[in-house]
Amino acid sequence: MSRTLQSDGPWRLRTVDQTLLPFEWRDITLASAQSCREAIVSMRVRGAPLIGAVGAYGLAFALRDDPSDAALASAVAWLEAARPTAVNLAWALQRVRRRVAPLERSLRAQAAWQEAERLCDEDARCNFQIGAIGAPLLRAAARAEPSVAQPLRVLTHCNAGRLATIDHGTALAPIYALHASGVPIHVWVDETRPRNQGASLTAWELGRAGVAHTVIADNAGGLLMTRGEVDVAITGCDRLAANGDVANKIGTYLKALAAADNQVPFYVACPLSSLDRSTPDGAAIEIEYRSAREVTHARGRLADGSVAEVALMDESVRALNPGFDITPARLVTALITERGVVTANPDAIAALPRDEVAWQPRPGSGS
Amino acid sequence: MSRTLQSDGPWRLRTVDQTLLPFEWRDITLASAQSCREAIVSMRVRGAPLIGAVGAYGLAFALRDDPSDAALASAVAWLEAARPTAVNLAWALQRVRRRVAPLERSLRAQAAWQEAERLCDEDARCNFQIGAIGAPLLRAAARAEPSVAQPLRVLTHCNAGRLATIDHGTALAPIYALHASGVPIHVWVDETRPRNQGASLTAWELGRAGVAHTVIADNAGGLLMTRGEVDVAITGCDRLAANGDVANKIGTYLKALAAADNQVPFYVACPLSSLDRSTPDGAAIEIEYRSAREVTHARGRLADGSVAEVALMDESVRALNPGFDITPARLVTALITERGVVTANPDAIAALPRDEVAWQPRPGSGS
Repeated sequence: MSRTLQSDGPWRLRTVDQTLLPFEWRDITLASAQSCREAIVSMRVRGAPLIGAVGAYGLAFALRDDPSDAALASAVAWLEAARPTAVNLAWALQRVRRRVAPLERSLRAQAAWQEAERLCDEDARCNFQIGAIGAPLLRAAARAEPSVAQPLRVLTHCNAGRLATIDHGTALAPIYALHASGVPIHVWVDETRPRNQGASLTAWELGRAGVAHTVIADNAGGLLMTRGEVDVAITGCDRLAANGDVANKIGTYLKALAAADNQVPFYVACPLSSLDRSTPDGAAIEIEYRSAREVTHARGRLADGSVAEVALMDESVRALNPGFDITPARLVTALITERGVVTANPDAIAALPRDEVAWQPRPGSGS
Repeated sequence: MSRTLQSDGPWRLRTVDQTLLPFEWRDITLASAQSCREAIVSMRVRGAPLIGAVGAYGLAFALRDDPSDAALASAVAWLEAARPTAVNLAWALQRVRRRVAPLERSLRAQAAWQEAERLCDEDARCNFQIGAIGAPLLRAAARAEPSVAQPLRVLTHCNAGRLATIDHGTALAPIYALHASGVPIHVWVDETRPRNQGASLTAWELGRAGVAHTVIADNAGGLLMTRGEVDVAITGCDRLAANGDVANKIGTYLKALAAADNQVPFYVACPLSSLDRSTPDGAAIEIEYRSAREVTHARGRLADGSVAEVALMDESVRALNPGFDITPARLVTALITERGVVTANPDAIAALPRDEVAWQPRPGSGS
């Protein structure tokens, strides 16, 4: 599988429309600030790292149209408002803004584009690192030597895989690393209502990669843990607060509670781009509420092979659709970052390298 | 709304096919042991008390066909195997068996029918009692005087309502009682994947009864509790073990964990017919695993108004579908039975009246 977001000629990007998966693989072209923002809002692209990257390119497009200071400020605000919870979007936009603000106007668009490209390269490397660092942690959670008969059993929620990033994924990166090294592994994939990113995206990409997996209803993970059928849980992260609280896809908190109640290690794969030092704790994180229609309706394939949307409930039903919840730091066994394994507490997080340092191209890294 | 299961002439029962709700109300007739068992297996009737009642009638039908001792024993076993987790089915069958076993063969079928009718009358009365006893408990959990602007906010999982019983429901009985007495109340209805009994049945019957409600994804309840938007949670019970552990619809355990983590009272409405003294604890309860298709597919209404089943995931996806989980006694604030509020601990449960006593028609009760 190639990178989720790719250059497709000058000032053109190609990605897959994730709202159509798993039923259809349709590439879409992003060639304007508008198309980038629309892709984020509609969730054609989703996943904290990926929307950060698309946002960065969106800002480059906006600066190509108008490189003025006023346009820069308004484009940042307009793109940032596309989705509120994942901090990576704001982080990527601020990073590009800082890069281009000191430049002459005529240089800004090109510099922004290059910064977005650098950000993508770094994301892929960062996630590969998370995989390398996380793999032994997951492996150590096996209750017995993993075998085909009794593989390492990992539970994950939502999709923090390749499709959520430029490459490798965050939560799935250690799983891919273990699979590549021949460790028998089986993934319990939470369906992840209401948008079913687990069933539609995680199952799809694990299947493509040949990683054994089984989809379960979001309700089922607790039972599996109580019955000893989960060795370890790992999820992604939309925003890490300064105290170690984690915002992630709605339902993550419930799995973290069940993991703690059953002594199952609960890891959060968290690139430093998801760390928001300005947010003191989870209570301060804005939770995105999305359309009730995501709860009341679902997309699926009819018997004739066509894809349709069905209403799951009576049309009079009111629904509420919060997209994220907060997992308190006390429930997180550890954070897996590209810079190492970190305890989810304020001191350990404060000691993490700053973006500006962390994201410096290192000597000899070739970028 | 009339009773969920009704006599419809001699040796005929009428109920609604719950697999078609909320899109279609279609009455079905049960007039044989086979049709009763099929209705239970297919979940046209579901809910612990209701399948107990239908099982009891099923046994009466079986005895009409063959009242021998051998037929009695085999019919009990055959009906009991229809669904394993809810103990009410076994309880009802054993109750009818005990009633008819000492009788002459020629009297057995009629006596079984009468016992099933008595059991239904008692179920309705019992649930009404649960409503009366539970209402003040729920009411007391309100953080402020309930008003239209800030009603009492109750979360429930699955359907433990009228549709799960002969009448009144178990978990919903206190809600109906409060609503009837004019207390402003709002119910958070867990969708309850994979069969969506919350969205399809609970929302439907609350709507008919005029009780304000909002459907949420099963993933959302934890967030709502952390944000102070749930005053109290209440669910039904498929089997209460002797130590106070509760088997109930898959996902109940996760909500109980979240309730405990947020100091939200978590009540279980539990008629004594759900108590299984012979099961020491939750680990000993058989969990029913149902078809993976319930996870991979969903029924819904298309834009043209027709109802169809859609595949939610790629057809290559494997799914696992446990139907129930175990909520440990320590997470249950209290059990609400028809005989009063009981702490979920072995001593309190051991002190509960025995079936034989509890289910004696009381003087003047008219049954």
